[in-house]
Amino acid sequence: MNIEILAIGDELLIGQTINTNASWLGQELSKIGARVTRSVVIADDKQRILDALDQCYTETDCIIITGGLGPTKDDITKHTLCEYFETKLEIHQPTLKKIEDYFKSRNRPMLESNVQQAALPVACEILSNNYGTAAGMMFEKNGRYCVSLPGVPYEMKGIVLEELMPRLAQRFQLKAMFHYTILTQGIGESFLAEQIADWEDRIRERGFGLAYLPSPGVVKLRITSYEGKQDEAEIMAFLAELNARLPESVFGYEQDTLPEVVGKQLKKENLSIGTVESLTSGLLAQHITSISGASDYFMGSLLTYSNDLKNRLCGVSVDAILNHGAVSEQVALEMAEKGRLKLGVDVCISTTGIAGPTGGTSEKPVGLVWVGLAFSGKSMARKFQFGDNRERNVQMTVLSALNWLRYELSQR
Amino acid sequence: MNIEILAIGDELLIGQTINTNASWLGQELSKIGARVTRSVVIADDKQRILDALDQCYTETDCIIITGGLGPTKDDITKHTLCEYFETKLEIHQPTLKKIEDYFKSRNRPMLESNVQQAALPVACEILSNNYGTAAGMMFEKNGRYCVSLPGVPYEMKGIVLEELMPRLAQRFQLKAMFHYTILTQGIGESFLAEQIADWEDRIRERGFGLAYLPSPGVVKLRITSYEGKQDEAEIMAFLAELNARLPESVFGYEQDTLPEVVGKQLKKENLSIGTVESLTSGLLAQHITSISGASDYFMGSLLTYSNDLKNRLCGVSVDAILNHGAVSEQVALEMAEKGRLKLGVDVCISTTGIAGPTGGTSEKPVGLVWVGLAFSGKSMARKFQFGDNRERNVQMTVLSALNWLRYELSQR
Repeated sequence: MNIEILAIGDELLIGQTINTNASWLGQELSKIGARVTRSVVIADDKQRILDALDQCYTETDCIIITGGLGPTKDDITKHTLCEYFETKLEIHQPTLKKIEDYFKSRNRPMLESNVQQAALPVACEILSNNYGTAAGMMFEKNGRYCVSLPGVPYEMKGIVLEELMPRLAQRFQLKAMFHYTILTQGIGESFLAEQIADWEDRIRERGFGLAYLPSPGVVKLRITSYEGKQDEAEIMAFLAELNARLPESVFGYEQDTLPEVVGKQLKKENLSIGTVESLTSGLLAQHITSISGASDYFMGSLLTYSNDLKNRLCGVSVDAILNHGAVSEQVALEMAEKGRLKLGVDVCISTTGIAGPTGGTSEKPVGLVWVGLAFSGKSMARKFQFGDNRERNVQMTVLSALNWLRYELSQR
Repeated sequence: MNIEILAIGDELLIGQTINTNASWLGQELSKIGARVTRSVVIADDKQRILDALDQCYTETDCIIITGGLGPTKDDITKHTLCEYFETKLEIHQPTLKKIEDYFKSRNRPMLESNVQQAALPVACEILSNNYGTAAGMMFEKNGRYCVSLPGVPYEMKGIVLEELMPRLAQRFQLKAMFHYTILTQGIGESFLAEQIADWEDRIRERGFGLAYLPSPGVVKLRITSYEGKQDEAEIMAFLAELNARLPESVFGYEQDTLPEVVGKQLKKENLSIGTVESLTSGLLAQHITSISGASDYFMGSLLTYSNDLKNRLCGVSVDAILNHGAVSEQVALEMAEKGRLKLGVDVCISTTGIAGPTGGTSEKPVGLVWVGLAFSGKSMARKFQFGDNRERNVQMTVLSALNWLRYELSQR
């Protein structure tokens, strides 16, 4: 199945909004085995919409239009679609009811322009919107489909997942593809590929697909079975093998995040946590508390940016700072050990490093980072060397610290 | 001048990469008065590139192609362009020299595929790349232009700003537009528009353009003069008027950020700063330290997520917590006042609130936030009510706290 994505909106062309809808649709459609052949952005303009429909309507099985359905703008898109598909608008009662309920539940007045959002083309299937007031539409002409969706991302996503995907799967008899994603941290894409070359060969020989999805600090591996759920057990065995081979790198599956995984470990073992941060200056704590309910295990932190506060607030010895420098194994260790006692927590993790762009020396270059980790009765420190980008160094430190903590917790 | 943007890359179609290049180009081209009429993404495929060139080449003055020039991929795009513009590839000596220098300076071996990056079409103008190895190209045919650029964002941006913009301005005799942006925080777009309606009327009557550029928590106002620098003094007077009318909202100009503006104020007055954070859990400190050199004024923070640590680490009284609750004016005040002493800083700012999605009550709903501020000899607290999105509440608190701090520092 070939699909074209057409986004309507001046705000996209002038760069005020980034077209994240297209990339999300690309991801979701790839998962079901559909192929996005082209993605186009045009202005809110009748003639341009008609031209775009004409152009793609001979080439693709389906065109998905996003945007142009807001209460102030919908006339043009809806009327243009009516013209193209030779139909007219009529109030769609179930949609009107939905819109009325929407405003009632929010205690907000309903305007005439909102009523008009329920005026929908007669010759289309309505895709119900459970997250807003603009319904989706699905037209058919010569065996090709045209889908029109609102541009607000969470409304668009809701309609696609709940209404559109089942219809596409049914009409195009798509192969029931099955995906499983495993997540790694702290290992580069090329290095990872080298390490698991034999595993990858076996996966490909078996006829499964394998995709490397890299992002800063994290590489996701996605295995695809083109035959559906029947291969699940076999794929699970492949994943378990990888997990056993790379226990320090593999941190989770599917949509897992490091703060979530670590949070579950802490909750399960009934451990409290705190941080002592210099380099990351709160970003580590911020990640840990990005999970609702983090207050069950996260108590607090000391951000000891200055050496004075490292000593005075946390109790790091002046000796360690003077003899080894603030960015050193000894200081990272003391930050974690003494911070653990000050904060009264079971686990304490510390960061110190040279974020850059200034402050590096030949002995301690920009990107040098020490992370400390203290449990009751055990403490250790680990060195990392990142690059010369300040923001990236801080982010890599947070990911690396959380992943190391995850690994150590899993070994207890 | 009408421009079409054509991005080449499978990774864009399957959503692995978001097409931020198109939005950046849209912004930059709008600034010089060019109009992006369409933005298209296609696969790395010769026939599709030729079709796209044919399609747009009758409609627009200029097509800008991004992507498809990497060392492993360049053959197809370059050869396709050669075919379309009836020319051939030859080693371009200045580019070869640049590539050699690039690898020499990084101490990395140069491969044959990198040498081939210097093989460029004879019938085009070379746009020099000072940030990587793939040069840009500018073709002309029938008075229309076709520009090919690498897809790596910072290489593409460098070539556009240094090489392309001057050429476009020259060939299309664009009006020398002149932009000035003023930045506001904490005031919604509609409310702002109401407040400054008379000012806006006068700007429009005078023939200047005015654009509202909203993003979460911040609204930028961009004034455009279509006649160039000669109107600068007049526009500056308009901006000064706005600044005087909205001193609590206007925080800067052009590319200013709140951490930068506040950092400059603190440095100028030789004041040190620290934070005591509950709700924001380090994000406020992280913003302050996002500026290189922040260690000159930022000393550190207490992240007192638990009530126990609010009391034990920071010294907030048990009375205040029990009688008023952790999210209250009294606790915000004590966090700032007592934190200031514990951290030994001149200025201390505190945050406490209900991030959500759980934890709200009818009296203290999700999104309720108190920010405290203590200078030596003066302290105060301020209440905010944000929405029901956890992440957004934390971010809005950080922006609001920094902007309030900026305002109070400016009033000293």
